Amino acid sequence: MQLVKFSSHLTQEIEQIKAYNKTIGFIPTMGALHEGHLSLVKAAKDTCEVVVVSIYVNPTQFNKKEDLDKYPRALEQDMELLKGYADIIFNPKSDVEIYGDEIQLKAYDFGKLDEPLEGAFRPGHFKGMANVVSKFFSLIQPDKAFFGLKDYQQYVLVKEMVKIDGHPVEVIGSPTVRETSGLAMSSRNRRLSPKALDAASVIYYTLTYCKQYAQHIPLNQLKETGLHMLKNIMQTEYLEFRTADTLEEYEHLKDGDNVFLSYAGVIEGVRLIDNIVFEV
Amino acid sequence: MQLVKFSSHLTQEIEQIKAYNKTIGFIPTMGALHEGHLSLVKAAKDTCEVVVVSIYVNPTQFNKKEDLDKYPRALEQDMELLKGYADIIFNPKSDVEIYGDEIQLKAYDFGKLDEPLEGAFRPGHFKGMANVVSKFFSLIQPDKAFFGLKDYQQYVLVKEMVKIDGHPVEVIGSPTVRETSGLAMSSRNRRLSPKALDAASVIYYTLTYCKQYAQHIPLNQLKETGLHMLKNIMQTEYLEFRTADTLEEYEHLKDGDNVFLSYAGVIEGVRLIDNIVFEV
Repeated sequence: MQLVKFSSHLTQEIEQIKAYNKTIGFIPTMGALHEGHLSLVKAAKDTCEVVVVSIYVNPTQFNKKEDLDKYPRALEQDMELLKGYADIIFNPKSDVEIYGDEIQLKAYDFGKLDEPLEGAFRPGHFKGMANVVSKFFSLIQPDKAFFGLKDYQQYVLVKEMVKIDGHPVEVIGSPTVRETSGLAMSSRNRRLSPKALDAASVIYYTLTYCKQYAQHIPLNQLKETGLHMLKNIMQTEYLEFRTADTLEEYEHLKDGDNVFLSYAGVIEGVRLIDNIVFEV
Repeated sequence: MQLVKFSSHLTQEIEQIKAYNKTIGFIPTMGALHEGHLSLVKAAKDTCEVVVVSIYVNPTQFNKKEDLDKYPRALEQDMELLKGYADIIFNPKSDVEIYGDEIQLKAYDFGKLDEPLEGAFRPGHFKGMANVVSKFFSLIQPDKAFFGLKDYQQYVLVKEMVKIDGHPVEVIGSPTVRETSGLAMSSRNRRLSPKALDAASVIYYTLTYCKQYAQHIPLNQLKETGLHMLKNIMQTEYLEFRTADTLEEYEHLKDGDNVFLSYAGVIEGVRLIDNIVFEV
């Protein structure tokens, strides 16, 4: 396993791998790795010859400086976790390695895909995310890239960015990994007290309730009940049913469409998201 | 396995068993047996030498004649299920075998135990139940009698009746047996459509939610949310938190007390009950 700090160095490594015609699997991360990340890395190892993991807390995708500052960092622990799975870890020495001397972001036209949900609550987040992932794809030239479906809207937008920029990469979404309680694994969970960790399982409990009874209760009623189930524990930002393909409001659902039920809310000052996709 | 139709005949059988000093386990049922009943019968077989099951739809514990008329009957199927487990099935030929020529009911003083919940919603139910169980205990003289904890208030009252009448029997409560969906097994489930069978699992889903988050949400808020979770599927009669020992309102709960969360509601005209007991 090799730790790479400079883009120029990474480019050399990638050229060598390409010279040997080896397939590259890539997982972009912001570090503070958990079982969810590891499931992506394992999926890459199962299907690609070389596994590249980036660990980079990208400043351009944080809409609040406070959130960027508080984002957990744990490089040594991360390296330990990746042993035996990753071949190259790219941990840029500074933002210059990614953005050069001046940060300039491309304005993607994602139609309405980046407007609702995270797009509405984290202005600029997806612009920063799409830019950094596109830069990584150019540098690393992966055959496959792996994204967790906990960030479902991100997964949809990465696929869109790949179309726009013409990257020859297959974007793969992997199922959310959960604690026994049902809580989605997240680096941010580290900032929660044991009590809040337990209580926050109410998010998945509520999503599952909505999926379970979607055949029996109209979606607008389900939403109201879901908000009730959450309200004494979480400060909810949104709980929304949307079409899984186009992220439109659920009134646009047609028979056989999948529903994407998406959640964001705050507990102990920590913002958590989760979702569930199901047929209605 | 022996089918007995007359009390006089049953008395003879019991005398013989007692002459051999064999222990008797007894399960009173109203027939239409399911896995829940069977778990009681198996518990009796595991701990007693002779197992007696009564199958008798007791008219004095129905407060609505319509409910009595609709109660499912399935004697042949029941006999089939009990093969290999029960030794004697007591299926009284008529009410005369139990009550004589004229039905006369003893008025038990249960304090406040029979006032709330089922007592409030089914006037006379517990009086009829206690009378018939006491008569069975006199006839059968069991060492142990087995009751399902789905009817938790009944279980509490049977123990009270045993004290009052001085029956030398150990009353044993067995955990509720559930469908995969979580729905408590009940003879009444047979009257539900497949859709309602699926939807009615919301009862246990709600009880489990309340248990799960009782540490995080005040009980009065939990109750409100629970009613929300149920309201688009069930016509709820009650959802109540009470003390598990004395069935008092939850305001009387002290540290370390167990909570008894009890539910009754109607779907497709079928009345279902369920409960869950847990620490707070």
